Amino acid sequence: MYEIKPIGVVRSPFKRREDVPLRGTQNVIGQIEIFKEYEEGLKDIDGFSHIVVLWIFHESKKYELLVEPLAYKGGLRGVFATSHPDRPNHIGITIVELLSRNKNELKVKGVDMADGSPVVDIKPYGPKYIKEGLRRGWVETAERK
Amino acid sequence: MYEIKPIGVVRSPFKRREDVPLRGTQNVIGQIEIFKEYEEGLKDIDGFSHIVVLWIFHESKKYELLVEPLAYKGGLRGVFATSHPDRPNHIGITIVELLSRNKNELKVKGVDMADGSPVVDIKPYGPKYIKEGLRRGWVETAERK
Repeated sequence: MYEIKPIGVVRSPFKRREDVPLRGTQNVIGQIEIFKEYEEGLKDIDGFSHIVVLWIFHESKKYELLVEPLAYKGGLRGVFATSHPDRPNHIGITIVELLSRNKNELKVKGVDMADGSPVVDIKPYGPKYIKEGLRRGWVETAERK
Repeated sequence: MYEIKPIGVVRSPFKRREDVPLRGTQNVIGQIEIFKEYEEGLKDIDGFSHIVVLWIFHESKKYELLVEPLAYKGGLRGVFATSHPDRPNHIGITIVELLSRNKNELKVKGVDMADGSPVVDIKPYGPKYIKEGLRRGWVETAERK
């Protein structure tokens, strides 16, 4: 077991998980508030146009190995082939555009978290995240329907 | 505090963290071994060309808010503006190409973890990870040197 501690919190216009649209959140503005004790770790972050936010699906209390994806009905999928919140470890990843920083507060674009979601890490976004020639299995089939 | 439990383990040619090259690991082959009790969650994963692996820097026992990046000497950076292992929560992200699956074992390309690193989540990789028009602050300056 590993203990993960919140380093901050998401401020989002979506009050609860079920308020978050399943697509089309790329222009949604919110804040990442990093707790004061970790503020020094934000040095140099301003230079990055995009950051990777790791956060907790704090409203999820259980997990399932087979889930029905929220955006696409039509059968059970392996949870690791989905981004369903009810996974063994309730960690979410969102890549957001960093608009500005004011001390320990980051104004960001592309928020798809619920308000109050605990933030557990921030990483700089870079070319290692960009892959080409994707196959996306069941998602491609579902999108065509 | 949140408890994160390993769901599997990385099999890598790099025995320890310091054996992992800082760049050029995109063709390195390894295995992600998911524990049998979670195997059912891998249903449908085979359709994806790339997957996101969340894992633990298990050799890191402390954190610093200011760190000297391993790949670029020349001063202290905020830890959240780096991918340094000594971060408040020791979570790493690697995006790998999924070559094949044999039951609970995934053969993958692009391994930059040390052998034995605990795996805590697998997610499908998709377009939401691909951003354009990057600014990468201190990294761009360091790369030019």
